[in-house]
Amino acid sequence: MTEATRVHLLDEVRKLIAEREREGISGLAIEVAPAQWAELIPRLDTPEVATLVNWLPEEVLADTLAEINPAEAAHILRALSRGTAADILEEMDPDDATDVLGALPDAEAEQILVEMEPAEAAEIRELLHYPPDTAGGIMTPAFVAVRPDMTVEAAERALRRRVEEAETVYYVYVVDEERRLMGVLALHRLVLVPPRTKVRDVMVGDVLRVRADADRESAARLLTDHNFLAVPVVDAEDRLLGIITQDDVADVLEAEATEDFERIGGSEPLAVPYRLAGVRHLFRRRIVWLLLLFVGQAYTGTVIQAFENTLQAQLVLAAFIPLLIGTGGNVGSQTVTLIVRAIALTEIRMRDMGWIIWKEIRVGLLIGAVMGVVAFARGELLGVGSDIALVVAITIVAICIWSATVAAVLPMALKRLNIDPAVVSAPLITTIVDGTGLLLYFEIARLLLVG
Amino acid sequence: MTEATRVHLLDEVRKLIAEREREGISGLAIEVAPAQWAELIPRLDTPEVATLVNWLPEEVLADTLAEINPAEAAHILRALSRGTAADILEEMDPDDATDVLGALPDAEAEQILVEMEPAEAAEIRELLHYPPDTAGGIMTPAFVAVRPDMTVEAAERALRRRVEEAETVYYVYVVDEERRLMGVLALHRLVLVPPRTKVRDVMVGDVLRVRADADRESAARLLTDHNFLAVPVVDAEDRLLGIITQDDVADVLEAEATEDFERIGGSEPLAVPYRLAGVRHLFRRRIVWLLLLFVGQAYTGTVIQAFENTLQAQLVLAAFIPLLIGTGGNVGSQTVTLIVRAIALTEIRMRDMGWIIWKEIRVGLLIGAVMGVVAFARGELLGVGSDIALVVAITIVAICIWSATVAAVLPMALKRLNIDPAVVSAPLITTIVDGTGLLLYFEIARLLLVG
Repeated sequence: MTEATRVHLLDEVRKLIAEREREGISGLAIEVAPAQWAELIPRLDTPEVATLVNWLPEEVLADTLAEINPAEAAHILRALSRGTAADILEEMDPDDATDVLGALPDAEAEQILVEMEPAEAAEIRELLHYPPDTAGGIMTPAFVAVRPDMTVEAAERALRRRVEEAETVYYVYVVDEERRLMGVLALHRLVLVPPRTKVRDVMVGDVLRVRADADRESAARLLTDHNFLAVPVVDAEDRLLGIITQDDVADVLEAEATEDFERIGGSEPLAVPYRLAGVRHLFRRRIVWLLLLFVGQAYTGTVIQAFENTLQAQLVLAAFIPLLIGTGGNVGSQTVTLIVRAIALTEIRMRDMGWIIWKEIRVGLLIGAVMGVVAFARGELLGVGSDIALVVAITIVAICIWSATVAAVLPMALKRLNIDPAVVSAPLITTIVDGTGLLLYFEIARLLLVG
Repeated sequence: MTEATRVHLLDEVRKLIAEREREGISGLAIEVAPAQWAELIPRLDTPEVATLVNWLPEEVLADTLAEINPAEAAHILRALSRGTAADILEEMDPDDATDVLGALPDAEAEQILVEMEPAEAAEIRELLHYPPDTAGGIMTPAFVAVRPDMTVEAAERALRRRVEEAETVYYVYVVDEERRLMGVLALHRLVLVPPRTKVRDVMVGDVLRVRADADRESAARLLTDHNFLAVPVVDAEDRLLGIITQDDVADVLEAEATEDFERIGGSEPLAVPYRLAGVRHLFRRRIVWLLLLFVGQAYTGTVIQAFENTLQAQLVLAAFIPLLIGTGGNVGSQTVTLIVRAIALTEIRMRDMGWIIWKEIRVGLLIGAVMGVVAFARGELLGVGSDIALVVAITIVAICIWSATVAAVLPMALKRLNIDPAVVSAPLITTIVDGTGLLLYFEIARLLLVG
């Protein structure tokens, strides 16, 4: 590293520390930890990252890459020789190394795997079998397991031997000769009982466990709901395969929330963080929904054409189109985000459909009443005549109720069909409401403006 | 509890267990834990909840209430006598009890506090001073602190004495005579060193710490970034006030994501979960933005009125209004959700503004090109004439680029002004783009359709 780059990097680190101190976080100043390097990487340009990567000791780099997004870590590894990449992955916890390799194209991952120690490569190959969105996909095999007839003393020795590589030293799992999960022992229990006690006599049986093919979000919520530091993952025969630890939980919940965010805004979820997403990737994830929504918009256009005569006679009606479809879209967008999020948090379920619709109808009515009065006043102000203003006001009440209802029903219905309710995005609701809202508008206009 | 209600409740528990087993989670069957009761509560109606509350032993009820949303727990407590409510709160960890009391109106909280043991009430009163969105607002005083000149043996005894009430037994904090934070000792270190060692000689100094007034989201991210089980909270004089533990992190990150969800959909964040939000509460949180957006929609209406002559001459232009403003709104909605989420994840910062805008302009251009071709084809299909179809196609390209840019710039600009970027909701972008998009439309039409 040149002196200038080193000075620049340290300067960036100093800025980062100062920034965190302003936020009220201190104690970072003495030694730059992997988490700080990880935080720094997004602020550096490509040559700076390359310099940093060559300069950091392998263990520190491994810990740093484990802290950043796997796609970004994979991006950095690609720039290194396969041998170096393999060395760094060996330093990482196997679940983190698997995430990084999983973010590489298969062929490239394989080229790095063959350079790794066979035992560690085998462990990672095993983990790569589990889809990333399952419990198996986020578990680590780095746990400590003992047999029930061991003494507590021997169990403690086993723990000490594996303290370096284990991801948690706070739980020791108890398995039978076929590796079936029998129980668990917390570290503080191990410390507090006489050393000659048999593990069998102090372990807690009936451990809460997750099957490897369970959804990763359910598994993550299990840890937070029960305040566990780790939860065991088993196969269909109840054999212990790995554990999921607290450090994965926040990542999983954040990733799931990000996916829902992207969907509700009308994109397909991105494969990589926004920062790393190229123009073509963004285009592909966004154009599909835009084209589908185009069909809906074309329908709305057709509604306007169908009522061309009404419009021709009362062109002033056109001026209220943005207000009506805008308000309908906004009300629908509010409802759909509230409902989709409540479903994701498992706050509401299918059986709640009835009272949710009833609640949204009432909210829609209240909102419609206020917006109707405002729209009427606006119409009078523009001097469009009370009859037109009344048509607009009545339409807005109808549209508000209609939007809130549609936006509540659709995600719940998808949930029942086992489709991710976040597929009902705000743009989708807006588009549905646009066309149907205009139908309401022109029908109400035709009824009230006869003659 | 009547026999019928008991049977019904157990039946619901059984259904819950069966459901989780289908999801791949087992080991729940032996004993119903507080987390299961907590999961059950949203599925019960009010009289059932009342029955359950009277039937559960106080300790189990306390743990159950700590697992559910504080607003919901407060709701349940209100139905009990003040004395019973006080007893239950005493059983809870002080930070959880504070959250529940904080969700009650001040006067009601005070009435329960006076019924509590003075020491525990004082602890909670102290915690109630910290705003809920700060590190102080989520910390607990239930930590173990020792002095640096103690032996490790004595520290271990201190830990054992407080093992019941402490929220984590995995860290012992070291403080001087003024309670200023000097260092930390991990439990496994305590176990592995000779008992006569002085705490001072084995503790880790330079502990990462958070000031009580720091943002709770930064504090929570600190735990996940560094994989800590707990992080100490200090005042401006570096005196140890409390700790934040892993079990709070997921809750904080979920709550922050929910707020962003609500904002991006165009509501003010709800004070309670959607399930508990009354019609009036939902109305109040939603009407404000709808009225503000009304102003924008009125402006869009004015644009249409201003071009009434253009429209009169070419009424067919009106049929494309929903397509144009719809597509603009959708592109803007996609961009704003991607950007707001990336900012929340601290993935992008102010200094990234330049390349983000450049990226969005290119994405907007690509999307606009495809949508332009489709719109042109649609125009030809409808037989509106190639000149009109061309106007629509060109306008759509312009609107796509414009929407993507506005939706990228606005949240970043708010972030610079220290305003929550999620305030720029999808409906706000849609509304801004509607009016300005129509301006583009009519200007392009005027230029190209002269004569």
